[in-house]
Amino acid sequence: MYFILERINSPADLTQLSISEMEQLAGELRRLIVDTVAENGGHLASSLGAVELTLALYKVFRLPQDKVVWDVGHQAYAHKILTGRRERFATLRRKDGITGFPRRAESVYDVFGVGHASTSVSVALGLAAARDICGRGEHVIAVIGDGAMTGGEVFEALNHAGELKKNVIVVLNDNGMSIDGHSGALSDYLSRLRITPEYIRAKHELEGLIKHIPHIGETVYKTASLIKEGVKSAIVPGGLFEELGFRYIGPVDGHNIKLLTEVFDEVRQLDGPILVHVRTKKGKGYIPAEIEPEKFHGVGPFEVSSGQVKKKAAPPSYTQVFSDTLRELARENRDIVAITAAMPSGTGLKAFGEEFPERFFDVGIAEEHAVTLAGGLAAGGVRPVVAIYSTFMQRAYDQIFHDICLQNLPVLLCLDRAGLVGEDGATHHGVFDLSYLRNLPNLTIMAPKDENELRQMLAAAFSYNSPVAIRYPRGAGLGVELQKELQPMERGKAERMAVPEVDAAAAPVTIFAVGSQVDSARQAAVRLKNEGIDAAVVNMRFIKPLDIDTIASVVNNPATKLIVTAEENVLAGGFGSGVLEAIADMGANVPVLRFGIGDEFVPNGTQKEEREYCGLLPEQMAEKIAARYKKAVEK
Amino acid sequence: MYFILERINSPADLTQLSISEMEQLAGELRRLIVDTVAENGGHLASSLGAVELTLALYKVFRLPQDKVVWDVGHQAYAHKILTGRRERFATLRRKDGITGFPRRAESVYDVFGVGHASTSVSVALGLAAARDICGRGEHVIAVIGDGAMTGGEVFEALNHAGELKKNVIVVLNDNGMSIDGHSGALSDYLSRLRITPEYIRAKHELEGLIKHIPHIGETVYKTASLIKEGVKSAIVPGGLFEELGFRYIGPVDGHNIKLLTEVFDEVRQLDGPILVHVRTKKGKGYIPAEIEPEKFHGVGPFEVSSGQVKKKAAPPSYTQVFSDTLRELARENRDIVAITAAMPSGTGLKAFGEEFPERFFDVGIAEEHAVTLAGGLAAGGVRPVVAIYSTFMQRAYDQIFHDICLQNLPVLLCLDRAGLVGEDGATHHGVFDLSYLRNLPNLTIMAPKDENELRQMLAAAFSYNSPVAIRYPRGAGLGVELQKELQPMERGKAERMAVPEVDAAAAPVTIFAVGSQVDSARQAAVRLKNEGIDAAVVNMRFIKPLDIDTIASVVNNPATKLIVTAEENVLAGGFGSGVLEAIADMGANVPVLRFGIGDEFVPNGTQKEEREYCGLLPEQMAEKIAARYKKAVEK
Repeated sequence: MYFILERINSPADLTQLSISEMEQLAGELRRLIVDTVAENGGHLASSLGAVELTLALYKVFRLPQDKVVWDVGHQAYAHKILTGRRERFATLRRKDGITGFPRRAESVYDVFGVGHASTSVSVALGLAAARDICGRGEHVIAVIGDGAMTGGEVFEALNHAGELKKNVIVVLNDNGMSIDGHSGALSDYLSRLRITPEYIRAKHELEGLIKHIPHIGETVYKTASLIKEGVKSAIVPGGLFEELGFRYIGPVDGHNIKLLTEVFDEVRQLDGPILVHVRTKKGKGYIPAEIEPEKFHGVGPFEVSSGQVKKKAAPPSYTQVFSDTLRELARENRDIVAITAAMPSGTGLKAFGEEFPERFFDVGIAEEHAVTLAGGLAAGGVRPVVAIYSTFMQRAYDQIFHDICLQNLPVLLCLDRAGLVGEDGATHHGVFDLSYLRNLPNLTIMAPKDENELRQMLAAAFSYNSPVAIRYPRGAGLGVELQKELQPMERGKAERMAVPEVDAAAAPVTIFAVGSQVDSARQAAVRLKNEGIDAAVVNMRFIKPLDIDTIASVVNNPATKLIVTAEENVLAGGFGSGVLEAIADMGANVPVLRFGIGDEFVPNGTQKEEREYCGLLPEQMAEKIAARYKKAVEK
Repeated sequence: MYFILERINSPADLTQLSISEMEQLAGELRRLIVDTVAENGGHLASSLGAVELTLALYKVFRLPQDKVVWDVGHQAYAHKILTGRRERFATLRRKDGITGFPRRAESVYDVFGVGHASTSVSVALGLAAARDICGRGEHVIAVIGDGAMTGGEVFEALNHAGELKKNVIVVLNDNGMSIDGHSGALSDYLSRLRITPEYIRAKHELEGLIKHIPHIGETVYKTASLIKEGVKSAIVPGGLFEELGFRYIGPVDGHNIKLLTEVFDEVRQLDGPILVHVRTKKGKGYIPAEIEPEKFHGVGPFEVSSGQVKKKAAPPSYTQVFSDTLRELARENRDIVAITAAMPSGTGLKAFGEEFPERFFDVGIAEEHAVTLAGGLAAGGVRPVVAIYSTFMQRAYDQIFHDICLQNLPVLLCLDRAGLVGEDGATHHGVFDLSYLRNLPNLTIMAPKDENELRQMLAAAFSYNSPVAIRYPRGAGLGVELQKELQPMERGKAERMAVPEVDAAAAPVTIFAVGSQVDSARQAAVRLKNEGIDAAVVNMRFIKPLDIDTIASVVNNPATKLIVTAEENVLAGGFGSGVLEAIADMGANVPVLRFGIGDEFVPNGTQKEEREYCGLLPEQMAEKIAARYKKAVEK
């Protein structure tokens, strides 16, 4: 079925292939990628766009000595298949399977682990510098999409690379799309470059042309050095990169294997920092993905023939409830504005942008700017909401400190995909936010127990005139009723949950839980009741400020034998630590059992598998609580 | 003495001044700035360079309706003096005095608080967007130095501004210096612009010139659109900014008030994003600062006549010991390379760069790139050290997660200025690092009790083949002897400190302390002994991994009545929380009293005043421990 592909066990096997065999191989790779992602879900459209690019790079360069660093890793499936993981590719993103992104521990060909954007040029420059210090001679190539180019770290790295003048090749894989439509002036600039003539043809034509403009050659060069700069960027497009010290080559058709191999063969001979601008089509070769590349950016299982996503019936997602509620609030409150960092679909803000285009900002993959921009907007008198996945909000930790909390400005940070995220795995888990946010003064931090509470919290957040963060999980809500009316929620006030037949005031065990773990705690309490242990459950709602009164009432209750905390966040410095701090500060000492994520990076699986791995399922919690309770009572 | 200045109580008072009076005022401002900084210390050279720029902006624009956003705030002393703080300027950076940086709570003219670099364009864009949403019409101006321009967030903001096309003015205050010499391709690019003819003259000359090149006007425009792009950047220099959608105006002499006011008057009338490139001299008008601008970037008290810094006799600083030890280690280990983000002097890496130029990287104000670059270097086989102030390392939190810890690479992060930093105040305290680092898997975190232990820890760090962070305070060490021999230090092993006449095994109180608080704890223990309370002291050395055995031995000791933790870090999620977590996980419950920094931003003062504010002085600790101990024993 895969006539050529089944002979390819490492990039070295590509050297003997003809161009037409390579073209056939590209088709086979696409087929394997589409069939696998249709089963497992994954980042399809970017990977389809980079098939020929991967083949050409891996034919021309000598891997693994030469180093190819993939930015983000959305486009690296062909890379995985060609580097000895063809057989295991069926396990993509599954528990105990291969990860969806390059990962150093997985293969010597995975030069650097990724998942977050805009790091590849920095990594490549580091590899090149280390090579020179050690006196080696390998090539180092970073492959980066036009979306990732908008991240400021890339500019920092280009600026540094242009100064160091080391041999490093940056391949700009430009599909004109970012994740979800393009944004920014750079994108416009690249569009202008994209419509310039093809690299090789243009080069010759322009060389001819320039000879026929004697005035440039003679008068102008002598008169003004300014003109010289100008003429330089006239001869070679890509002046922006040239100004930063890169030699610009392109644009090159990224689906023409022959041309790509010729260009890379030429580039291999060149010294200094080179930027090769390659034009590709996101979703290339699979019609449904070509038509709707944003839908097939990161996609769940789908039917290959139709491109229909296999949707299971499920309650509305937290993202959907966020999306609907924010628009509802924004209709009443004209000050509400919303910011996304290149994820209008993922965060649910697309509909907001359609309804309120003047109050919506897609800043590109630029989380730092997104957060500071929100600070500026708030200082200017409006009420910004910044919706960014928890894991990517890590990029803006200093901006949350410096531009939001220190200024005490009313910015609402919405951290989607908080907790364990499933198949994307370790690079994408949003399990640090409670720890990295909890130390910042002036910040209120909330987590809803279900999708209706998210709705209520969003309304509440706008009633506090200070910085607020709300974190909520990936995926479907619990299926609870969404109350139409938005009720006030007192800042810092917890909610006691009813557990059938348990009298909270007399319960020897109380579980303080936040977010997704509230429902797990309730289920655990029901199981414990069956074992004869009464456990009360408190939905803390606020990680900061903690409801000290409620904690004190439990601590000071003589019935209390064990306090339990539960959160989908790392245990180090998270919500449970906050509870320990509160108890210690009361001068009290009560046994406390904490549930959360241990001190390790959680490998990929389904969300449920990951929760099980971390011991967060209700049955696991009940068992552990019962054992600890018995020990506490024995003492 | 200040004939004109004493009449200026707000920017409105500038409107009636003639150009020659403005020039005289510039001199008076310089005198007040130099005299005050000579007493109080501060950011001198940048502020001197921006005097005329400030005057011209504040004469042309209508403050406070129009908004001027200062980047970093190093250059904002003239701003402070002109905006109603002339009298209070003598209290600059002192306890209860005005802060060294713009601060919203201090003045309506302080549009946005700063201290960290590269945020102004994002803030200005936010203010401009809020203005347009609210239907107002004020001007928004960001003033940013060439150093801060290397921060990636600026690129993110320029990219977004170029797309939004809102009216926003970015003034590039280019002194060609950054903080400490220039770095990067952008810097080279700006240098090329700096040597182009003056703005006004150039504009006319080029307009004339272009008319005399008929081939450009006729042939070329028709033949290739490429050339058009090129010619555009020939006519107007600053093509890099033009490509990003900005209109570039410059370069302009930043010390010519007349020219500056003319240019700003013209710029006021223009629409869309404008970049005005202003050339200034760092330290302008004070000869010692003109000669050594990096020495007078941030400077302590000095003698005005000579420029001699008033040095008190003090033990070597932690920075100095770091500097010396790292070079010593690098002479033996040729794999050691060092990275700074525009702070070779501040971090002590300058000498390293001089001794090992090939193994030294100054990346500019670009902390994200600095950390990822280190990841690349480590993956390439060398041993990078990244020295960045604790507060600025916040910028690279995600990179520490994604490019160091997740990859488990042997990178050494050296966090200077950890803890309370004195006069720079709230924007600069390094008091969050233990909280934001402690949640990251694979990371070892150390803090030395004195400068000799820093020496030992540096050597130890290279013996662990994994990510390590060492945090140490600003200022002088304790004056202990520096052991020549570097001894191995077992990872995760604490050290018991001797306290005169206290038997640790029988002491009812044990203080677990880290870093600067170890000596304070020891002093507190001596005081407690005088009150008849035996307190043992443990230097934990490792915040992560914690020495669980040592903690357990104290917890399980029947003599223990109270455990105390002490750190110069916020209490939320810091070292003390780690101890609480460890005790809870043992299933134990012991009263724990924690010393650290509360949930607020600590205002400026001397380091000692700030420690007193936070209750961290030995006498304060002793008193609080004694009270709590008595309560614990009574129970």
